[in-house]
Amino acid sequence: MSVGESIPRVDAWEKVAGRAKYTDDLAERNALVGKILHSTIANGLVKKIDTGEAEKIRGVVKIITCFDVPGFPFPTAGHPWSTDPAHWDPMDRRLLNRRVRLYGDDIAAVIAEDEIAASRALKAIRVEYEEYPVVLTPEDAMKEGAPLLHEECPNNILKHTSVEDGNFEEAIKEEGLLYFEDVFETPIVQHCHIESAVSFAYMEQGRIVVVASTQIPHIIRRIVGQALGIPWGMVRIIKPYIGGGFGNKQDSLYEPLNAYMTTQVGGRLVKLELSREEVFACTRVRHGEKIRLKTWVRPNGRLVARSYTAYSNQGAYGSHGHGIAAKGTNVFRQLYRDEKARKADIYTVHTNTASAGAMRGYGTPQAVFAVESHMEDIARKLNLDPIEFRFLNVMPVGFTDPFTKNVNYFDSFHECVEKGRASIKWDEKRERYKNQSGPLRRGVGMSLFWYNTAVWPISIEVSSCRMALNQDGSVQVQLGETEIGQGADTVYTQMAAETLGIPWQKVHVISTQDTDVTPFGTGAYGSRQTYVGGAAVHKAALLLKEKILRYASEYTGVSPANLDLSDGSIVNVQYKNKSLVSLGELATDTLYHREHAEHLTAEVTAQVKSNALSLGCAFAEVEVDIPLGKIKLLDLINCHDCGKLINPLTAEGQVHGGQSMSIGFGMFEQLLYDPKTGKLLNGNLLDYKLPTILDHPRLKAEFVENSEPTSAYGTKALGEPPTVPGAAAIRNAVLHATGAAINRIPLTPHVLFEEFGKAGLL
Amino acid sequence: MSVGESIPRVDAWEKVAGRAKYTDDLAERNALVGKILHSTIANGLVKKIDTGEAEKIRGVVKIITCFDVPGFPFPTAGHPWSTDPAHWDPMDRRLLNRRVRLYGDDIAAVIAEDEIAASRALKAIRVEYEEYPVVLTPEDAMKEGAPLLHEECPNNILKHTSVEDGNFEEAIKEEGLLYFEDVFETPIVQHCHIESAVSFAYMEQGRIVVVASTQIPHIIRRIVGQALGIPWGMVRIIKPYIGGGFGNKQDSLYEPLNAYMTTQVGGRLVKLELSREEVFACTRVRHGEKIRLKTWVRPNGRLVARSYTAYSNQGAYGSHGHGIAAKGTNVFRQLYRDEKARKADIYTVHTNTASAGAMRGYGTPQAVFAVESHMEDIARKLNLDPIEFRFLNVMPVGFTDPFTKNVNYFDSFHECVEKGRASIKWDEKRERYKNQSGPLRRGVGMSLFWYNTAVWPISIEVSSCRMALNQDGSVQVQLGETEIGQGADTVYTQMAAETLGIPWQKVHVISTQDTDVTPFGTGAYGSRQTYVGGAAVHKAALLLKEKILRYASEYTGVSPANLDLSDGSIVNVQYKNKSLVSLGELATDTLYHREHAEHLTAEVTAQVKSNALSLGCAFAEVEVDIPLGKIKLLDLINCHDCGKLINPLTAEGQVHGGQSMSIGFGMFEQLLYDPKTGKLLNGNLLDYKLPTILDHPRLKAEFVENSEPTSAYGTKALGEPPTVPGAAAIRNAVLHATGAAINRIPLTPHVLFEEFGKAGLL
Repeated sequence: MSVGESIPRVDAWEKVAGRAKYTDDLAERNALVGKILHSTIANGLVKKIDTGEAEKIRGVVKIITCFDVPGFPFPTAGHPWSTDPAHWDPMDRRLLNRRVRLYGDDIAAVIAEDEIAASRALKAIRVEYEEYPVVLTPEDAMKEGAPLLHEECPNNILKHTSVEDGNFEEAIKEEGLLYFEDVFETPIVQHCHIESAVSFAYMEQGRIVVVASTQIPHIIRRIVGQALGIPWGMVRIIKPYIGGGFGNKQDSLYEPLNAYMTTQVGGRLVKLELSREEVFACTRVRHGEKIRLKTWVRPNGRLVARSYTAYSNQGAYGSHGHGIAAKGTNVFRQLYRDEKARKADIYTVHTNTASAGAMRGYGTPQAVFAVESHMEDIARKLNLDPIEFRFLNVMPVGFTDPFTKNVNYFDSFHECVEKGRASIKWDEKRERYKNQSGPLRRGVGMSLFWYNTAVWPISIEVSSCRMALNQDGSVQVQLGETEIGQGADTVYTQMAAETLGIPWQKVHVISTQDTDVTPFGTGAYGSRQTYVGGAAVHKAALLLKEKILRYASEYTGVSPANLDLSDGSIVNVQYKNKSLVSLGELATDTLYHREHAEHLTAEVTAQVKSNALSLGCAFAEVEVDIPLGKIKLLDLINCHDCGKLINPLTAEGQVHGGQSMSIGFGMFEQLLYDPKTGKLLNGNLLDYKLPTILDHPRLKAEFVENSEPTSAYGTKALGEPPTVPGAAAIRNAVLHATGAAINRIPLTPHVLFEEFGKAGLL
Repeated sequence: MSVGESIPRVDAWEKVAGRAKYTDDLAERNALVGKILHSTIANGLVKKIDTGEAEKIRGVVKIITCFDVPGFPFPTAGHPWSTDPAHWDPMDRRLLNRRVRLYGDDIAAVIAEDEIAASRALKAIRVEYEEYPVVLTPEDAMKEGAPLLHEECPNNILKHTSVEDGNFEEAIKEEGLLYFEDVFETPIVQHCHIESAVSFAYMEQGRIVVVASTQIPHIIRRIVGQALGIPWGMVRIIKPYIGGGFGNKQDSLYEPLNAYMTTQVGGRLVKLELSREEVFACTRVRHGEKIRLKTWVRPNGRLVARSYTAYSNQGAYGSHGHGIAAKGTNVFRQLYRDEKARKADIYTVHTNTASAGAMRGYGTPQAVFAVESHMEDIARKLNLDPIEFRFLNVMPVGFTDPFTKNVNYFDSFHECVEKGRASIKWDEKRERYKNQSGPLRRGVGMSLFWYNTAVWPISIEVSSCRMALNQDGSVQVQLGETEIGQGADTVYTQMAAETLGIPWQKVHVISTQDTDVTPFGTGAYGSRQTYVGGAAVHKAALLLKEKILRYASEYTGVSPANLDLSDGSIVNVQYKNKSLVSLGELATDTLYHREHAEHLTAEVTAQVKSNALSLGCAFAEVEVDIPLGKIKLLDLINCHDCGKLINPLTAEGQVHGGQSMSIGFGMFEQLLYDPKTGKLLNGNLLDYKLPTILDHPRLKAEFVENSEPTSAYGTKALGEPPTVPGAAAIRNAVLHATGAAINRIPLTPHVLFEEFGKAGLL
């Protein structure tokens, strides 16, 4: 048995030894260097670009500008394609832009023999702009007369949707309801993956090859084809090991431009690696959101009706667009069940900030922060126990999502909360921290959350897998799904071993995706890979095993009905599981057989038409230094029901990483823009306050393993969920400690000082 | 239609632009450098190796000697494995050798940070030997008391086989027979591929990866496993573009040692590139042979009985061994049909020269030189027309090889000879050059030949192919068969396009083999790839097409019986071949379908249990300068029936290359060894006289296209055949010009001076 064991990561040795090859390691010695010229205004039009001086610089090979590039509009979001245009992501991108929409927009690019020549050329290019006023917030962008970023978006609204469950206006007329209203604000944050956005491109046999640090090689292939206006089969994407992505690399970043660059230098290899500053300013960010919650509740705590209005800051370009705000809405709609009605109004609005895209959690950290802070405040004001208040209203067992058909099969909310509550000693501490005074005060807080697994039925969910049997009985496994540091290859190894009946050491997962030879899979996003890729592994393993046993029957003379594969041997299940022949011996016989030689392989596509609720909670304990405006996070415990754990060790690692991101989101991180110029002020790792190890408590992960009935291996989403509940739990712990209900994050000293003042604590 | 067209080579652009990546281009910047210490004696024993001084040299990382390496014996020949030990090639190899068998044997190896440190270390290693006498020819090696190279080979005979058809002793008793006897000698020559023997190796996830310039990646994987005593699945071989192999790289050369090296430095990348001198001295060569032919013939020219005795110089190690001499014997046995009987005795004998292995033609250039020179001499002595004499005895139409079941379906020998004869103006020139005198004389000569296609039934013939449909209707094609410069990828492109019914531009053959992901195929040898790989392409294409049409039927509503794929569109064959939907549109629909998404792929193994006679002739015209001992080759015309031509242009290229090799073999090339020390005297491209363009006439290739009934695309061997008949044709032209019947090649001034003297011409 392999599934459920904490086997070491299959890529551990490579990575610990520093020997794993990442994109930059693979670029050839004499690569040309590409660099991008970014606009120095945030909103306007490029009137003229003079490259005359730059072209004279020794080592400059080619300069391309927004006036030269092909004009095919393309989307960048990492979603499966659809033949239905209604499902297309915003097609608002060009390789380079005349119409500048953020400070740092891409307006030209230099290809040079080396970095120095490229940098000098960038400085020597002269640009003339026509400038427009800058808008940095949805409020400003939606104002009458604000400059339009995209003509097709009136009032800069990319999309506005409304949804109502029940009769809202009727519901709130009920007598005796208590009414609560609050506005919550979340920051624009960045993924801060260790490895920059990097790719290199060259041509081979007339086709374009892009080696890229991406989560979604097969999708990038399609997008490069769209951006260059060429058939998609003329593009080949190779994805080596990658140093993190967290959703930023679930977008096409600069692969299309890089692909175009190589076509401009006769197919020579051009490398395009962004600086950290460029990653901050010009790639994707998490949508900053402003969320207004209105709640009507009976004095006993039963929710009757709620409304949710969100303004999601899309930034300059469409990317994943409205999907993020919409996903947040689902959290609001389903985490708690209002007795009568609820409605939501959400706006995704363009501004002159970095384009917001996918980021681990995909809109739910924002929504959960708002919803779970609001619930805490209501409980406090109603003098109800916050956990009891939640359970009075939480999504019940048996609940079925009318859209996704997701079923809440188990009482996992309760089970998770019980585990977390015990772990943090909730009851004892709630009591102990009741009546504190003085500058240092402690508190505990918590938050629930839920998250979907994979993206059906919004998009198709499909994953292909190929397995090939080696002469020694080991098996090669190829999937389009990507190892991005999360441990996907390790769990696929375990799954394949489990279903085939061979030791996991005999499974070799091919870690590199190469769209020329790798079966189709859409990649790492939506916490889909163990669920959907797992279904593909399962299906392929069954098919390969069937072929093996059919052959084994010929070899042994035993009916295939009595044969099985166990621990790498063919066994007779009707006779003491006696081993008849090793798989290696059988495989060798098969491959070199004079009468019927065959390379045993199996390739399948698995389509998944379900989804699964992944859920849980976080508990936090803080110590607040009121005069200093400082929080010390003493404890953070996440408890997840992500179904069956394939690998408890790597599952714990996932939770720790997500918790860390939630700490940054709740306490430290935010991108700040100059209100006048729209220039990013802290787009570097010195000024942008990513939490360090000193800011972390010893992180704790607990699990409730209710095997998911829709899933091949009983597993469901764990990639993103750990990022979701932390910020609200921390914020609620601060509330418990201080009585200050703070509605905006991150909880920096700046904010705390102001809020503690307002609360009369200073 | 694509098959039969002279489409440009699919790798042409890469190679002409100098952008194709070969093994050395792919090694990383900070590769460690491996170098081999070669013995300075040709026969003996290493008593001691002192690495003390060498290890002190800065930059030396590790030194391994013949005393350290694992002792697993392994074979090197590039043949499919067999589960029957009787089919194994000689298992006489170790990674490094204590028992030295040639001057330049591998006794130790250095791994260093750079070339200089490695070279300095080699010089600083002290070796003590025990020396034995040197034997360089089979005669000397078989003498009583000669030192034994391998204990398992008495009298140094690796193998001796005899075969008799009919009753030979009885046959030669016939009254009135004329008797002819002659001895022919052929030189040891080298392949002289442009790219050296080069590989690099590193470890990844505990497995060994070897990137190597090889013709046979899947076989190398097995041999590396055997040599290191590890499961074969722990080895991964990657084959990039290669700069020629011609059979030398149908052997495992230094991949096993390279693989071992990386394990000795913790998996760091070690590059091992041989110098040209090492390639000459330490890789493989063509077997030098001495062939005695005895013929009993009636005065009318009908052959009654013949005998063939060959001594094949195997050199130090077994490699492909006796197979080469055996294949020559088949030429003797089958090209001409003796009325009563024939017999052959062949000896493959170890000597202290370079190990002889596979080389384009695989023993048949030697045999054809002997047989066709002998036939010419007999015709001349009987005063018969040499062509008429041959056709009196040649393998008849309908002849079936009792062993391979090959059938001589067509009258191709006549058709080929008629084309060649017309092209060179044979009859006119035979007449014109009849009575020449003076120092400059011209002559024309010819030679027949035949060659097998692929290696069944000696070994299994198996090839797997995977095809995957892209969204634009283009198709990826993967095979284990290798492009080694011969144009395999181009003909596979055409074959796939033909059977699928799409333009060839839509077929993307993956040129790199990677045993981790490439379907199994044994590689480039035995002129097998168009024949066996072609069968795999055909089978995979049919399967993919079937899947496509099944889906197209759902898409169009038309019965699959009425659908076909033509020029990249689904057409209704029952209604004017009307195009219903493009394959690209259909593929996109399939891949992203909400109800039944599927990545359409097809993978098959094709096993071929036939073989095919590839045959033809060469015609040569020479001008001989008798006093100078110099031949000017005025014309060389090969005419081949290799079945249907897939690509006439690349077929012509194959013939030109083979003709060039036959010119070298017949007129210029030979490896010379110091008789005392066994040291190679001319192992470099200055002293080894490879013919240059100045030595070539305008080469001509003619074809007779009799579609081969056993072959998927009607094609059969063309890779090796062009090398076969040239030397005899040139030698026979010299005979025609001068009357001197010269029985040894190459026809250097040295030889000519001596032979013309003997013939009384000087």
